[in-house]
Amino acid sequence: MRIDVALLPESGIKGDVSDTVCIVLDIFRATSSMITAISNGSRSIIPVSSIEDAYRAAEQLADPLLAGERQSIRIEGFHFGNSPFEFSADKVRDKTIVMTTTNGTIAIKTAEHAFLTLLGSFINARAVCQAAKRQKRDILLICAGTDGMFSLEDSLCAGLLVDIINTDGSYALTDAALGVHVLYKGAGAALGEIAGKGRNGKRLADLGLQKEIDYCLRADSVTAVPVYREGKITACTL
Amino acid sequence: MRIDVALLPESGIKGDVSDTVCIVLDIFRATSSMITAISNGSRSIIPVSSIEDAYRAAEQLADPLLAGERQSIRIEGFHFGNSPFEFSADKVRDKTIVMTTTNGTIAIKTAEHAFLTLLGSFINARAVCQAAKRQKRDILLICAGTDGMFSLEDSLCAGLLVDIINTDGSYALTDAALGVHVLYKGAGAALGEIAGKGRNGKRLADLGLQKEIDYCLRADSVTAVPVYREGKITACTL
Repeated sequence: MRIDVALLPESGIKGDVSDTVCIVLDIFRATSSMITAISNGSRSIIPVSSIEDAYRAAEQLADPLLAGERQSIRIEGFHFGNSPFEFSADKVRDKTIVMTTTNGTIAIKTAEHAFLTLLGSFINARAVCQAAKRQKRDILLICAGTDGMFSLEDSLCAGLLVDIINTDGSYALTDAALGVHVLYKGAGAALGEIAGKGRNGKRLADLGLQKEIDYCLRADSVTAVPVYREGKITACTL
Repeated sequence: MRIDVALLPESGIKGDVSDTVCIVLDIFRATSSMITAISNGSRSIIPVSSIEDAYRAAEQLADPLLAGERQSIRIEGFHFGNSPFEFSADKVRDKTIVMTTTNGTIAIKTAEHAFLTLLGSFINARAVCQAAKRQKRDILLICAGTDGMFSLEDSLCAGLLVDIINTDGSYALTDAALGVHVLYKGAGAALGEIAGKGRNGKRLADLGLQKEIDYCLRADSVTAVPVYREGKITACTL
């Protein structure tokens, strides 16, 4: 079995993934927020790319919540922006959320023909790795990046996941998997500081959102593992 | 001024590079061999993709040498394969070499509209960085990769170059530049061992070419800086 990493969704996914478990990573903040919402009891999340698609998806649903932001500001008329802190249990339990994200949605959809598509972040690192390993198949970690560019925090998280998955050395690592693992190990205790130097980290810090950065980078605070299937994200029970 | 890294030529080069200095890296072994040949007095190198293109280019030249390999074996009728050790001064001085490489040539050609396109490797790391810095422009390090996939040794070298170029902290680093720098620092004294775990490193080791690996990873053994311009690689005099 093998672990590979797509450092960008567009460049990394080559060939057939129908027998591969994909884990999509968009640390700041799409997958961190989605995992939080599922962890807090949301019934399902519909990821869409545009505001128009969000309204179209919402029309098909009874009592949906809308989530999304543009330039870090909540879209007018939507219930949530894109902060994981907004998706508290009292607001999301048993609810369906239509969430518009750009990079996260693109990355999730590139993996839709995978054997299994899971959502990962630092916050559910160990849990998502356990779910992936149980499938006893090749694993592909997909870094969402930002507007087609490499994102530091996504690859740092990919390195942590390689570290957890391959503790016993039973997987072969591609060059990209070796690279993110050395990157993660090299960051060490300075991981938060290093992730904060990246474009997204700096942008969030400039917006006064250091607490969100800290939350998104804290490993293993939840055990929820969202799975994407047929247009919908739900809690993985595999 | 800014340092960016294209982790793969196809995905990393977005936008206009006409005011950017590009440094192309294909450590195992295209740029290492080309730098060696220029260092040993080769007048120029014509990089081409196919054997047919090599013969076509050679027809236009007086007394050309042909270099290239397929599956690590010298092409029949060619003077050289792709080992840096073949391009010794007694063989290449004042000669023009037509060299067929796949990944290296693709990467070089993606940078042909750059302000300046230099060839880098560990072996000329300091020299190529000095030449790039003298231009006082943005710098883009282009990792050739292998058949469209990320190569560990190219990104490790990119990390060394970021380290040398930005000693004084005067450049802004993109996420990719930050990432390869942390990767390079994380590898530390184990760099040779880590690069040897990559796909290309393993392939060369399996062919009994450990001495070539060691040569290609040894920093600053030469001072030659090849420049690519209008289809031709020559010694940079800027």
